[in-house]
Amino acid sequence: MKNRIKIIKSPEKLTNIIKELKKRGKSVGFVPTMGALHNGHFSLIKKARKENDIVVVSIFVNPTQFGPNEDYKNYPRTFKEDKENCLNLGVDIIFAPTAEKLYPEGYKTFVEVKDLSDILCGKFRPGHFKGVATIVLKLFNIVQPDTAYFGLKDYQQFVIINKMVKDLNLNIKIKGVSTVREKDGLALSSRNKYLNEQERKEALLLYKSLKSAEQLIKYENVKNSDVIKKNIKNILLSGNIIKNKDIDYIAIVDAHSLAELKKIKGDVLIALAVHLGKARLIDNIVIRKVK
Amino acid sequence: MKNRIKIIKSPEKLTNIIKELKKRGKSVGFVPTMGALHNGHFSLIKKARKENDIVVVSIFVNPTQFGPNEDYKNYPRTFKEDKENCLNLGVDIIFAPTAEKLYPEGYKTFVEVKDLSDILCGKFRPGHFKGVATIVLKLFNIVQPDTAYFGLKDYQQFVIINKMVKDLNLNIKIKGVSTVREKDGLALSSRNKYLNEQERKEALLLYKSLKSAEQLIKYENVKNSDVIKKNIKNILLSGNIIKNKDIDYIAIVDAHSLAELKKIKGDVLIALAVHLGKARLIDNIVIRKVK
Repeated sequence: MKNRIKIIKSPEKLTNIIKELKKRGKSVGFVPTMGALHNGHFSLIKKARKENDIVVVSIFVNPTQFGPNEDYKNYPRTFKEDKENCLNLGVDIIFAPTAEKLYPEGYKTFVEVKDLSDILCGKFRPGHFKGVATIVLKLFNIVQPDTAYFGLKDYQQFVIINKMVKDLNLNIKIKGVSTVREKDGLALSSRNKYLNEQERKEALLLYKSLKSAEQLIKYENVKNSDVIKKNIKNILLSGNIIKNKDIDYIAIVDAHSLAELKKIKGDVLIALAVHLGKARLIDNIVIRKVK
Repeated sequence: MKNRIKIIKSPEKLTNIIKELKKRGKSVGFVPTMGALHNGHFSLIKKARKENDIVVVSIFVNPTQFGPNEDYKNYPRTFKEDKENCLNLGVDIIFAPTAEKLYPEGYKTFVEVKDLSDILCGKFRPGHFKGVATIVLKLFNIVQPDTAYFGLKDYQQFVIINKMVKDLNLNIKIKGVSTVREKDGLALSSRNKYLNEQERKEALLLYKSLKSAEQLIKYENVKNSDVIKKNIKNILLSGNIIKNKDIDYIAIVDAHSLAELKKIKGDVLIALAVHLGKARLIDNIVIRKVK
């Protein structure tokens, strides 16, 4: 297996290969990525490897999901290492198209999942989730997976993709995979590379604030969202770098509908987004079945 | 064959049936319709029948492509006759879902083909082509056709669907089928049923004006679009019913990009939309390779 990884750049070629594999009854697992692969991606790939005959990983930094002042140009690109890692994890096919190939001149078609795309991160990154939904749909059409794997660190993305798949009658199973963290709790992200040593330390406040919220809800029976949010904010601001203006949002919402919760009940998502140095970091936890 | 037509209401059930057929190597031809089938639809179905192992016809009056003041409620529904006709034409499967099944409560996902959706009919029916693109994509995902057939009377729709298929990397061949006309030239349309006797006579002016334009371009070498448009308008207004306010548009555009043409050259689409009684009628001709 190790020497047989295929690297494919042409959408049409990949579609034809998959068509042949499907004819032979092979199941296809798909992990869409923007490259700069880390342990978070690896856990998706490992799960896909366990559950499917064929594993396809796409590596594509998707321009349509970046805002004009965001980090499209500087987003880390580490194809050589990514390839080596995919090889070691038993990936069968890397799909690595060019932006010109996926968005040729005169490209005009976009998919939008209403409401869910305008809240949380969508509020601060207009157009982001339209770009995400569109590229994921394109990739689904090219790869034709039976199952696709998404990291739950991008929780809103996971909810939006699920909704798109259901609404558009796509016959694809979507699986969410738990956030992988450093030993000290920092959620893995390709953008952690942007942090200097001091910022890296400060970044621990994100998970710390979420764990503290969990503590309050689970063991101190606090059910008022405003109280929890205030507590999170205090922790985020307790270091030397993060200021009020750096916090895009602290949100407490229903984990399925993403509707805001005044009172904490049911399956609850606590999510936040914070600017730290050159990075915009997101993190979240889900607390299930709160009574 | 005649007794084996399947009528399916459940998207999931149809997807599973198609999956099985595909595994057995069957090709699937698809004709999406809103029912009220006439000879125009029959020509699509016959072509599909000739070219595929399995023919699926969908019958679904799609609410999302009707404006709030349009004829969704009154659109002709003739399922019993449609079924009989499909049976006689050798259709294998009729897909006839309910609106509740395709757009359940909380539905949120829409596809848009920019620019192409805002001109011609799109200008007068805001949201129409978003509704069309969305339902066609949903149906494609459910039916998984190898080839889908569309009537060229809805020329703009044909261009938009083609663009969507290309942009979204769908592996589906789109075929356009020539407009079928009554002996006297009127383009077949389910909405012709709305016309009374007098309006039915007046409706002939649409095709008459288009044929006159063709005459001017082909045999009298007129290349100025404004001159042609004026001629069309004069013919449309030459009867007793159609007034200036009834004409939504008379357009002369490139048949591929739908870009407006000041000078007539290349493959040229001449299209018009006119309100007549309770009906809004459209018609068009394409003149190819004008020098």
